[in-house]
Amino acid sequence: MNADHHNWACDLSQLYAEVWASLMRGVHDRHAPARHPTLATVSTDGRPQARTVVLRAANKMAGTLDIHTDLHSAKVRELRVTPFAALHVWDSSAHLQLRLEAHVTLLTGPDVAAIWESVPAASRLSYGSDPAPGQPIAKARDYTKGADQASFAILRLAVETVDALNLGQQHRRARFNRDDNWAGMWLAP
Amino acid sequence: MNADHHNWACDLSQLYAEVWASLMRGVHDRHAPARHPTLATVSTDGRPQARTVVLRAANKMAGTLDIHTDLHSAKVRELRVTPFAALHVWDSSAHLQLRLEAHVTLLTGPDVAAIWESVPAASRLSYGSDPAPGQPIAKARDYTKGADQASFAILRLAVETVDALNLGQQHRRARFNRDDNWAGMWLAP
Repeated sequence: MNADHHNWACDLSQLYAEVWASLMRGVHDRHAPARHPTLATVSTDGRPQARTVVLRAANKMAGTLDIHTDLHSAKVRELRVTPFAALHVWDSSAHLQLRLEAHVTLLTGPDVAAIWESVPAASRLSYGSDPAPGQPIAKARDYTKGADQASFAILRLAVETVDALNLGQQHRRARFNRDDNWAGMWLAP
Repeated sequence: MNADHHNWACDLSQLYAEVWASLMRGVHDRHAPARHPTLATVSTDGRPQARTVVLRAANKMAGTLDIHTDLHSAKVRELRVTPFAALHVWDSSAHLQLRLEAHVTLLTGPDVAAIWESVPAASRLSYGSDPAPGQPIAKARDYTKGADQASFAILRLAVETVDALNLGQQHRRARFNRDDNWAGMWLAP
């Protein structure tokens, strides 16, 4: 695909629509680039951390995204101290880099019971491993997977800003803020 | 490729070798996954940031990685305050996620003159755009590219830890630290 055929990148509102179209493709198509974004957080000692996550839900109207996690993972500990995340997606087919800044709310227990019911049995095994994710073990396979509802948590990202960069013969970059209702402004790439 | 054919993931030293093999593929092959890692930093107000970068050099003996940047980019401002970065790679062919923590040194001026000489003319245009990257502009194309040696900087990442996760029928995860000469330990995935 010729990147200069991305006419949506010439208009702020169309570019913003493409941002959410890319995110929605991630939710609904396991092969779409936004299915597996990189989530960056700040560690409890103030250093950056980044890891792959799975995008489970996207709500354009509310400007929120959901990620499922084991409650005992390091990112949960980090987000309890610094409840902000950056989400990064490189959508190669759209030649589009997404950089989202978000405030993160941790949902657990009764707040996630209904969603837990909809998690397939095989996927439930990702929540409740023993020992917890990131703990040292003597041999590579010295752990068991669980299916523990009490270990299931949702990170709900309330998006505050979107930085969208479309690579073409001339790059186009824009920033969208919740505070101005996502009107957007162009930035030098 | 069947992920369980990744015999290198069964042994800590072989897994560590594969980490650097993946990074070296990124330096030498523009289509390799590690060519375009995600670099996470901490903003001046303490929030996470993440963006795609290009991996330009990797030195396994020294445990260092080089990234080229415009000196006037936001990540340079951020790294002057918090000189730590996380580098994230998802190597799909190896089913391998790399998470590196590094201390970052900013090289400029005479320290990068020799490397600037080796940067192709077309690539030099990425350094010295006006206005600087991330500055607001009225229209999408209201910027000019530069080829300004004074705007060329190198981020030299001294890797401190490597977290390597190999996805297979059973996941394997290990952590390697500079402090113990990269001997490594297994972690619960």
